[in-house]
Amino acid sequence: MKSINRRTFNNKLAKGVLGTAMLGHMPIACGMAAGQDNKKLGIALVGLGSYSEGQLAPGLVNAEHCYLAGIVTGTPAKEKEWMERYDIPKANVYNYENFDSIAENDAIDIVYVVLPNSMHAEFCIRAAKAGKHVICEKPMAVSVAECDAIIEACEHANVKLSVGYRMQSDPFTNEVKRLVKEKTFGDVTYVSSDASYISRGNPDQWRLNRALSGGGALLNMGVYAIQSNIYGTGTNPISVSAQEFSTRPDYFKETDETIMAQMKFPNGAVGQLCTSHNARGNRLYVSCTDGWIELNPCHSYGPLAGRTSDGNKISFPHKSQQMLQMDDFAQHIKTGSTNFAPGEMGKRDMIIVEAIYQSIREGGKTIPLDLGDMGIVRA
Amino acid sequence: MKSINRRTFNNKLAKGVLGTAMLGHMPIACGMAAGQDNKKLGIALVGLGSYSEGQLAPGLVNAEHCYLAGIVTGTPAKEKEWMERYDIPKANVYNYENFDSIAENDAIDIVYVVLPNSMHAEFCIRAAKAGKHVICEKPMAVSVAECDAIIEACEHANVKLSVGYRMQSDPFTNEVKRLVKEKTFGDVTYVSSDASYISRGNPDQWRLNRALSGGGALLNMGVYAIQSNIYGTGTNPISVSAQEFSTRPDYFKETDETIMAQMKFPNGAVGQLCTSHNARGNRLYVSCTDGWIELNPCHSYGPLAGRTSDGNKISFPHKSQQMLQMDDFAQHIKTGSTNFAPGEMGKRDMIIVEAIYQSIREGGKTIPLDLGDMGIVRA
Repeated sequence: MKSINRRTFNNKLAKGVLGTAMLGHMPIACGMAAGQDNKKLGIALVGLGSYSEGQLAPGLVNAEHCYLAGIVTGTPAKEKEWMERYDIPKANVYNYENFDSIAENDAIDIVYVVLPNSMHAEFCIRAAKAGKHVICEKPMAVSVAECDAIIEACEHANVKLSVGYRMQSDPFTNEVKRLVKEKTFGDVTYVSSDASYISRGNPDQWRLNRALSGGGALLNMGVYAIQSNIYGTGTNPISVSAQEFSTRPDYFKETDETIMAQMKFPNGAVGQLCTSHNARGNRLYVSCTDGWIELNPCHSYGPLAGRTSDGNKISFPHKSQQMLQMDDFAQHIKTGSTNFAPGEMGKRDMIIVEAIYQSIREGGKTIPLDLGDMGIVRA
Repeated sequence: MKSINRRTFNNKLAKGVLGTAMLGHMPIACGMAAGQDNKKLGIALVGLGSYSEGQLAPGLVNAEHCYLAGIVTGTPAKEKEWMERYDIPKANVYNYENFDSIAENDAIDIVYVVLPNSMHAEFCIRAAKAGKHVICEKPMAVSVAECDAIIEACEHANVKLSVGYRMQSDPFTNEVKRLVKEKTFGDVTYVSSDASYISRGNPDQWRLNRALSGGGALLNMGVYAIQSNIYGTGTNPISVSAQEFSTRPDYFKETDETIMAQMKFPNGAVGQLCTSHNARGNRLYVSCTDGWIELNPCHSYGPLAGRTSDGNKISFPHKSQQMLQMDDFAQHIKTGSTNFAPGEMGKRDMIIVEAIYQSIREGGKTIPLDLGDMGIVRA
């Protein structure tokens, strides 16, 4: 890891020179001393769908350590609008064909892949090969094998990798982690999370197309519920069982509508989750020996809300989760600070996803898991 | 059923005569016109454990339609204390051997069996044979076969039967039923309930002894979670799967520690529950197409609390659930009003309990259920 840090530092020095020519995009903080640590890193968003448009790009406007430097889109009509709205030079605009030439563009430090799930692996690997740090939107991919390929490509290219797990940078999530870690309410015995919404939109959307999504509610929202079971206990599950429910097969033709899963944790806690594209559910409940912790809403863009059994509220000023997430990753690149959502975390969750699908195929059988501390980040 | 009502009415007339000699126990309401409908019915508690002592007897003090008329105990030392505290005449005190002679005691209208689960069937049947109306504490018994035997005994003796499901008379529960029935938040799509507490007490308590309890968390608390899944959707499940978790086998030697179950309902809703003797959990979440309903706490003695997705609270003045439950049953006997917890309801829940244990034995397999509207009370 030392060599990666050195490489990153050298990169930063090199880009700092360019930075002086692009001050509008890369403000140098006042009082900056040695080095270029406060230079904002340039992010290119790959895929300009609703998440990029509604969350990532607006989040970057106020980010401290990174900014929206470029776009990669398959829809030429979007180019002009985005260039104007975010002051993006033409030189930083790519399509899916010429994307690999981004390697030559030193204004781009990070490539954030926000494409349909089945395209994550290809574009993350191409980004790594172009020498760019990579953020891969969740779910990391549609198989564990693809996660491995992404991780390997990033390691081989000596670039940093994180998964678009915005919750890992959210203060509500981190407050739960703190309360669990410090055993404020004793030992965790039971955790329950729901991550669901009701989908009634365009039946041709990519999320309902297995070839593009790789799965339904479990891949889209279920990874949040898996994550909150894990940060709610502070440990990885040692087994999982699961069930699938279908009530609107005409709409959910190819992808899972509702999945429930149950997990056992090594510290004696048990957990369950429900994820659905046909229900509301946005909750986390962490039950401890001496009390409980609750978030509701828990997995949405905020403002979130929480409370504990002692009658206190969990409350923080609202900030863009996406801004916090990308700033955390930029700082990780710049200073070697914690990577709150490393590739191993995305891979671990995909291992659990595959075990859940296996359990469903095998009629609800309990599937043992041997994850150790994979993907557990103890900040 | 007509004949039962007639018989009950005749009984009441007969007992009204006695009532005048026992005004201290059976106050006649002012303004009472024809008949003896406002005479309080006499209840005998069978088993003077903590639930009788802490909940049922105090609940009866303020009941409007019934009162604590007698006791049946296997502990002679308790007799004097109870007689004094509740002004119970010696003639209304029985032990388990002479219990059947209660048939000759017209001061006792209702026998409430509050013994360990495996003793419910025997004493409910003996009570029915003695010509007394019966309240059987939950769970109704330790098998469906025993439920059938109790129901048959009560039908044969022409006496009324209800299960000690206090929640069915609770205003919070009934508010959820109303909101579900009136589709205030649209159609129910998902329901989740927890009914759990952490048991660390005397390892020799009867609840941990399978011969007396018939099972662990599922029989004790799980029936509440089953009930709230059912009243949360307004329908019986059409299938169930389940898992058992054990983390403290030294303490839970013979009985289930934690069980999770998943259900499908005929109206398209899905449900899950967790019941445990090793976790806190006292919640109901009903997720509908246009909003949600939540109770927390949900299954305890109150005061309960609830809220809905529109920001409103569910709130009622606190009353003893047990008082409401016994008054509802007394009114059912006196006037033919709704029996909110009939024997069929207890039997239905035991069918689900047996299916849950079957699913666990069969590795989490989904067990189909063919319950129709069994035990559903639409008031």
